[in-house]
Amino acid sequence: MEILKTKVAIIGSGPAGLLLGQLLYKAGIEHIIIEQKSADYVAARIRAGILEQVSVDLLKEAGVDQHLNEFGLPHHGIEILTGGEKHRIDLSALTQGKQVTVYGQTEVTKDLMQARREADLTTFYEAQNVKIHDFYAQPYVTFTQNDQQYQIRCDFIAGCDGYHGVCRASVPQDKIKTFEKVYPFGWLGILADVPPVSDELIYVQSERGFALCSMRSNTRSRYYLQVPLTDRVEEWSDERFWEELKNRLDAESRENLVTGPSIEKSIAPLRSFVTEPMRFGHLFLAGDAAHIVPPTGAKGLNLAASDIAYLSSALIEYYINNSEQGIIEYSEKCLKRVWKAERFSWWMTHLLHRFETESDFDLKIKQAELAYILGSEAGQTTLAENYVGLPYEIKKFENLPKAS
Amino acid sequence: MEILKTKVAIIGSGPAGLLLGQLLYKAGIEHIIIEQKSADYVAARIRAGILEQVSVDLLKEAGVDQHLNEFGLPHHGIEILTGGEKHRIDLSALTQGKQVTVYGQTEVTKDLMQARREADLTTFYEAQNVKIHDFYAQPYVTFTQNDQQYQIRCDFIAGCDGYHGVCRASVPQDKIKTFEKVYPFGWLGILADVPPVSDELIYVQSERGFALCSMRSNTRSRYYLQVPLTDRVEEWSDERFWEELKNRLDAESRENLVTGPSIEKSIAPLRSFVTEPMRFGHLFLAGDAAHIVPPTGAKGLNLAASDIAYLSSALIEYYINNSEQGIIEYSEKCLKRVWKAERFSWWMTHLLHRFETESDFDLKIKQAELAYILGSEAGQTTLAENYVGLPYEIKKFENLPKAS
Repeated sequence: MEILKTKVAIIGSGPAGLLLGQLLYKAGIEHIIIEQKSADYVAARIRAGILEQVSVDLLKEAGVDQHLNEFGLPHHGIEILTGGEKHRIDLSALTQGKQVTVYGQTEVTKDLMQARREADLTTFYEAQNVKIHDFYAQPYVTFTQNDQQYQIRCDFIAGCDGYHGVCRASVPQDKIKTFEKVYPFGWLGILADVPPVSDELIYVQSERGFALCSMRSNTRSRYYLQVPLTDRVEEWSDERFWEELKNRLDAESRENLVTGPSIEKSIAPLRSFVTEPMRFGHLFLAGDAAHIVPPTGAKGLNLAASDIAYLSSALIEYYINNSEQGIIEYSEKCLKRVWKAERFSWWMTHLLHRFETESDFDLKIKQAELAYILGSEAGQTTLAENYVGLPYEIKKFENLPKAS
Repeated sequence: MEILKTKVAIIGSGPAGLLLGQLLYKAGIEHIIIEQKSADYVAARIRAGILEQVSVDLLKEAGVDQHLNEFGLPHHGIEILTGGEKHRIDLSALTQGKQVTVYGQTEVTKDLMQARREADLTTFYEAQNVKIHDFYAQPYVTFTQNDQQYQIRCDFIAGCDGYHGVCRASVPQDKIKTFEKVYPFGWLGILADVPPVSDELIYVQSERGFALCSMRSNTRSRYYLQVPLTDRVEEWSDERFWEELKNRLDAESRENLVTGPSIEKSIAPLRSFVTEPMRFGHLFLAGDAAHIVPPTGAKGLNLAASDIAYLSSALIEYYINNSEQGIIEYSEKCLKRVWKAERFSWWMTHLLHRFETESDFDLKIKQAELAYILGSEAGQTTLAENYVGLPYEIKKFENLPKAS
């Protein structure tokens, strides 16, 4: 058994764990990342692609915004297609110039991994049998890698290991409350190297169900269809996908759509999930380990980023300013933002998807809500200000010690 | 059988029918009102009490705003009490100076009845066995009054006879589509001659259920409690009512609350209901005959007023300008506004009431929605602009013939 010591043990090397690591490194706070999967697996996962400004700012603070600045696409608006008509939400005009940036989560992960390699920071990939221990007193982490057993003693554990991770599962049942909603449909997504149908994202509400025309770059498109959860991806040939997408689009978009072979195709379920609290003694949960949003509002990655903003700030406050204030407030501050994003994601999902259980009255109410939102500046602003990301306050620390 | 002829036969002498009569009279268009109840009964019904500016404007146009100007209370804001804290929605600041007017529907009805008496216009009260006929071709109305049978031949029938009236019920099933939602609770309301607890209305969201502190004047209060539909009014003594109301209020309001004997007490169910279309040949439906909203958004009377605005305008256009345009567009125009008000009323009801079926997740989402709405200017504006009444366009006709 090899015994290591560090200040913060980060479980999981997705964007949350990697970003936290980078911010701690910048602040001169030592840490180790433990990840169950391989580096290649982590780097290849296809996920979200819309960054709020606060997420972009955080990546800049972490010093990993070079590629983002070069390849990220600033978007100033989105389209809502309903009743066969497109309505533009001018995000920037409605939010005093704010915007979102189209940049794949895959790219964010790669950038963070690259920075981590360059700084030669410790990461254990393919860690087996990861367990966290004694986090209400003297926390430590155990795992096996290449038949070598490790124990990492630490001050804190950051649970960035996602919805299925060990961290949340290690919390005693009586210390945790969870809130959940499962949606009766999934998103069938494809990635294809074809130019996007439009310069901006199109959110489609149609009688045949929801669709989303998104993108990763000017040459790579990401399209989604609402499908029954019982559908299997094998049932969806590329041809069938493009055909059904066209059925949900307006005439103009149908004409502009460039189709091509898919390079990835998968069905993802939609879930709303929140854990309260998000700190258990010396264990913090962050990102998907603590909460899941349906992807409709593009909030998953951004919420992970804001958790990490609060968490890195709290840890810096603890180590540099000798104050536990940020740690004490971590859970409450995160959850305030989390629930607003959960609300927005639920609302976008509810409004734009077809639910088999909804009555004619429910449908009419949704149409009236869309008509109201699209016809009112205040209504559009509620959508826009949530979409670009609600503001949050983070303490900024000056005169941090240089990264070692 | 006495046979009468007129242009418009109005069924029902609630505020919708009376207001239509008054506007037609002003435009010199002859009409007759037929009402099943007695004048005393109609005048005594206790109903809503919040007028949108467009409703006030319409009463002015009808020349029945003298009392309203004298006794109506302009309100520039409302309070939302949630989590034990009051939050003011500054209606006027958020809507470029718009306001609502507190003035009982009972008073509106009395004012309209008074004007009608002064103009000596024909009303048949206590009409028995009212029936409407042949409204796709040559409409006429039959009824009995004091054992005398009547037939009124007319160009049009205006169905202003409420949810339980004969007009909607006379439409062939295959010509009409209805949309409905019934809520699993009611409002227990009392009227008492005590000064209101606050200068402004307080909408209360609490764990014990919804409450509303409203008023009819500075000396007459109207309070409501959400109660199970199975409750009977006899189970609610005044003492029990005041006690439960206090339980749902914040400390300050609890202290300021002046209690006293109730002069009216009743339990009303909550319902959302819409009829499509709202015109069937020569028959128009207006007000509660065509749609019902739960009272949470204070939209019932105002929606009746906007129907009448469209209907009077359509009839004036027909008789004075020889154009059927307004008649053709009546249903579509009304329904556009109706659905938005239905949406708002449903939303206010959903957000502020306790539903037994809602999960912990649902509750949290509602709390997050309230927190978002109250914390965002755009969010507050969506509430305010719906509450004061969304704008609508009515053709104004100049140089109408003088009322005869």
